[in-house]
Amino acid sequence: MSDWREPWLRARERIADLYGRHVGESIDVLPTPALVVDVDALQRNIATMMAALDGQTARLRPHTKVQKSPDIALMQVYAGAIGVTVASVWEAAAMAAADVGDILIANELVPPDRVAAAAALAAHARLTLAVDDARNIDALSAAMTSRGTEADVLVDVDVGMGRCGARSPEEALRLAAQVQAAPGLRLRGVMAYEGHCMLEPDPERRTRLAGRAMDHAASVKELFRAEGLPADTLSMGGTGTYNITGRNPQVTELQAGSYVFMDAFHGNLVPGFEVSLTVLTSVIARHGDTVILDAGRKSIGIDFVLPPMLGHDYVARYYAEEHALFDTDDRFRADIGDRVRLVSGYAPTTVNLHDVLFAVRDDQVVDVWPVFPRGPGHSGFLTSLERG
Amino acid sequence: MSDWREPWLRARERIADLYGRHVGESIDVLPTPALVVDVDALQRNIATMMAALDGQTARLRPHTKVQKSPDIALMQVYAGAIGVTVASVWEAAAMAAADVGDILIANELVPPDRVAAAAALAAHARLTLAVDDARNIDALSAAMTSRGTEADVLVDVDVGMGRCGARSPEEALRLAAQVQAAPGLRLRGVMAYEGHCMLEPDPERRTRLAGRAMDHAASVKELFRAEGLPADTLSMGGTGTYNITGRNPQVTELQAGSYVFMDAFHGNLVPGFEVSLTVLTSVIARHGDTVILDAGRKSIGIDFVLPPMLGHDYVARYYAEEHALFDTDDRFRADIGDRVRLVSGYAPTTVNLHDVLFAVRDDQVVDVWPVFPRGPGHSGFLTSLERG
Repeated sequence: MSDWREPWLRARERIADLYGRHVGESIDVLPTPALVVDVDALQRNIATMMAALDGQTARLRPHTKVQKSPDIALMQVYAGAIGVTVASVWEAAAMAAADVGDILIANELVPPDRVAAAAALAAHARLTLAVDDARNIDALSAAMTSRGTEADVLVDVDVGMGRCGARSPEEALRLAAQVQAAPGLRLRGVMAYEGHCMLEPDPERRTRLAGRAMDHAASVKELFRAEGLPADTLSMGGTGTYNITGRNPQVTELQAGSYVFMDAFHGNLVPGFEVSLTVLTSVIARHGDTVILDAGRKSIGIDFVLPPMLGHDYVARYYAEEHALFDTDDRFRADIGDRVRLVSGYAPTTVNLHDVLFAVRDDQVVDVWPVFPRGPGHSGFLTSLERG
Repeated sequence: MSDWREPWLRARERIADLYGRHVGESIDVLPTPALVVDVDALQRNIATMMAALDGQTARLRPHTKVQKSPDIALMQVYAGAIGVTVASVWEAAAMAAADVGDILIANELVPPDRVAAAAALAAHARLTLAVDDARNIDALSAAMTSRGTEADVLVDVDVGMGRCGARSPEEALRLAAQVQAAPGLRLRGVMAYEGHCMLEPDPERRTRLAGRAMDHAASVKELFRAEGLPADTLSMGGTGTYNITGRNPQVTELQAGSYVFMDAFHGNLVPGFEVSLTVLTSVIARHGDTVILDAGRKSIGIDFVLPPMLGHDYVARYYAEEHALFDTDDRFRADIGDRVRLVSGYAPTTVNLHDVLFAVRDDQVVDVWPVFPRGPGHSGFLTSLERG
């Protein structure tokens, strides 16, 4: 491999080779279970989010861990997103290889292989990194310096979720001052994630919780500025809080991602977006009104909400690895061989189970998009970035 | 592609190309999260299961949906398994391509592409299929006839789980008679799965439930014989019931699979096997005694049981997509960059999230085994079987 983008270029070739034959087919003959994206609904969701942010301070930096698809990320950027958010340096590499040039890795990069990969990747894209530890700042600075590259840095601040992030304003300030003094790193502001708000079903309580999280993060950013540190960015928010964080003038970047697909979990939280992603299944058995579909925990994410059928209100009895069981009634006509579409319970864990997104218009496959990188592995970028 | 085995051969090349560089490395430098198999423990588990079945009627036909690894399946066959069980025709194709010659597909093959693939694959391996529907039997018979191939068939009988399978002995008998008369199909007996017993934590109650399931399945097999139909096989059982079903003289084939790896779910059910599969993670943040690991729902299966740490009894606060949170105490010394191993909650859904199994001896990587086929797609076998 001489081109650092090789893993992405190969993935594209591989998916075209394996699944390109299905382009032009009706979804009625697609091998099931298949991950199907309604391109028109997807594009309407992208437009709806851009319209919602029109005139607001917050610009969109969609989290693409949801779809793991550079093809969709490019649509989001063309529609006005300032760049993307990703969960890992390998996801960042795929985005950069596909020409998405401005990438926030919203996760601490700690193991040396990931630190080295970020330093190498910074030669090819504008990277923003999140930090919450002094030793990690030293390691990132040393790697950037030795590669001759630079990256922007946000100090990760815990706003109530209790996961990553500095636990106090004072700790955050110490880290910020360290970043500011570190060669190869450019302090840009604060990152936070109000993940604990996403699980709050009551909209009023969710608004109150998210407000508190935003105020805390914004106050840390103001503390940086009061100390003379450069801090123009506050990046936070998700689809479950986009209508709260996206309208708050303190927030400069919104990380919402799930809005592109919608799923049963987010659909319960926020209105206004369409389900553009479904898992197409076949009925493989029907015994009375019990219907068994060929999708299970190995092909659909059941986190938080058991995936419902599209267009029906039957609740699944359970999801096994390769089966979904629905107790229907005599109004339900599908029999063995018929197709049923499921709405994912949680889109990010659903997409991660598949190799390919079938892009569909009017129930006909118009393109095949790689889900890449799948799996937690480096997918070849470890080697290609070392060399390139 | 001119060789029908091409998808498997290519997968092997791809994994060697991507991950072969790690052979010889210590697991201390392996990119995390990584799926790590202790080869010695794996082989002891294989030997333990063979010893447990020594002298019993039941022969082992391990379910390989657990590991999705032809490499491990071959070890099981070399140790005395009569063949393997798989969940899909694409898994069967991978096993056959890797020279596992006797394969039970323990799931209804309904969509036409899968029926056609099975008919093509039957030219290359002894296939046994499961049926629970008259129209499906016709379709399978027609496909086999047109390809000039044959397959063995078990009638799938519901024994209390309420999923696939004939709902009454009479219905099973009708299906058996139809199979017997169908060209291209050879009736061999009964398949059943007492999945509802696996979720029963109390051993006595589990034994009683499994006993009832076995008696029912065996009585259906005897009914076939009483009607002059050939029925020598009763295939059922899993790791959670191996010490019940494996010792029952009515059962001729045991489908246990999880015993090779063990996981927290099965470890709670049956003693005697070692944890040979772990997910190797890195600590990416530590705030006080809260430790955050870089493995989450996208790299470890949390079904049934939250994955515990190997060698510690801390219970995870939660698993997010890319993070596991543990509240530890001051006895826990790991800090950022250190390695922690997790025991999968449920091995089958864990393995399905990874590209590669790192085979390890004495904490050193000795081989890289593809997890194949991943994802629910045909992975190229649709095309290669049509041509080959």
